Amino acid sequence: MIELFTWTTPNGEKPIIMLEECELPYELRLLDISTGKQKESDFLAINPNGRIPAIRDTETGQRVFESGAILIHLAEKSGRLLAKTGPDQAEALSWTFFQAGGTGPMIGQVHYFRNAKERSDFAIRRFETESRRLLGVLDAHLKDREWLAGDYSIADVMNWSWAVSGLKGLEARGDFPNLSAWADRVGARPAVRRALDKLQSAKSALPAS
Amino acid sequence: MIELFTWTTPNGEKPIIMLEECELPYELRLLDISTGKQKESDFLAINPNGRIPAIRDTETGQRVFESGAILIHLAEKSGRLLAKTGPDQAEALSWTFFQAGGTGPMIGQVHYFRNAKERSDFAIRRFETESRRLLGVLDAHLKDREWLAGDYSIADVMNWSWAVSGLKGLEARGDFPNLSAWADRVGARPAVRRALDKLQSAKSALPAS
Ligand SMILES: N[C@@H](CCC(=O)N[C@@H](CS)C(=O)NCC(=O)O)C(=O)O
Ligand SMILES: N[C@@H](CCC(=O)N[C@@H](CS)C(=O)NCC(=O)O)C(=O)O
Repeated sequence: MIELFTWTTPNGEKPIIMLEECELPYELRLLDISTGKQKESDFLAINPNGRIPAIRDTETGQRVFESGAILIHLAEKSGRLLAKTGPDQAEALSWTFFQAGGTGPMIGQVHYFRNAKERSDFAIRRFETESRRLLGVLDAHLKDREWLAGDYSIADVMNWSWAVSGLKGLEARGDFPNLSAWADRVGARPAVRRALDKLQSAKSALPAS
Repeated sequence: MIELFTWTTPNGEKPIIMLEECELPYELRLLDISTGKQKESDFLAINPNGRIPAIRDTETGQRVFESGAILIHLAEKSGRLLAKTGPDQAEALSWTFFQAGGTGPMIGQVHYFRNAKERSDFAIRRFETESRRLLGVLDAHLKDREWLAGDYSIADVMNWSWAVSGLKGLEARGDFPNLSAWADRVGARPAVRRALDKLQSAKSALPAS
């Protein structure tokens, strides 16, 4: 059985969507990151970086941390959403890392600097500009494609939650119609709906803290 | 044959090190990113994000962009530096993504804000603090390990150049002795020396621009 440690954030949504897409059984362990529990030693044994998401295989004890690593691991375990070789595999890996090093950290900094104790318009502008550029790269690529890398794949699961966050936070849906249409296509998938519903219900069921 | 499009930067060093480690034949195509050529349409066909590094297989025409995707692709092609399954594979993937979303963008922002037109001490401090935290995660993990994920792997190739850049830019070698010793171990490998020498010689041989 897979234990999934996660929370209701863009990075936290990816592995639960992947588990639902691949129909793998899992146990959901919510870890409210506002409590700081992710930096305590129990969880550091699962992700030494003290961040969600992470998974643990209760049979083998094996841990996997970083959303991108988790998606590749689950794709191999299930034989789903990642071609085993060839151009579709190479494209899916490329777009998966594009998200990990691009929209994730850059849109993350937009949120950070907008809410920071000290105001830096220069920093806010830098990260808004770079985030828009990255959304534009996705938009151009999706001009005549249904999914990012051949069939629906880990590249779509990886990119979706941050694209949605960026389109919203930058009020950019109108500027990126191909990306917005793709985001709607991904968001309408039954597995995606199931995953987000389960995450929200589990959160609602938590005792008030 | 593999064509490698790269430059003498931390991200640009990773795939040439990997190619030398795996003894795969390749042709080096230097792309001086100060010229802006990486944002022209020829190169955008190889990396739509307009960044080095990227590779193209001249036989199949297949492209791969993002250093992490390139390392996984070359590991599969050569059968080297990435376990095919099990804990060593999961750990190597986890630490590979740790670099892609962590030390890369965060240390990159330290350089950016230190050299930016407008000074923001708040932003500089934020990224210095986060970069130090990430180097500390690597240092703790390397306390009783020779390499990041079992045998020497793509995780070491991926993390090395940015760890070196961070240790130097933050003057942090003394604070992170395990990480520094590991960085020296990686840096002393013959394939790493060969790769960096080839990159520098190719750069020196360029016509002055
Ligand atoms: N690159 C990582 C990023 C993970 C990440 O940033 N997680 C955030 C929530 S979205 C977190 O745990 N923050 C709490 C903290 O850093 O203490 C991934 O893709 O998994
Ligand atoms: N996440 C990417 C980052 C690539 C990257 O940032 N490349 C830089 C050089 S280190 C670049 O091409 N900069 C020029 C530009 O952005 O125009 C990777 O790991 O390959």
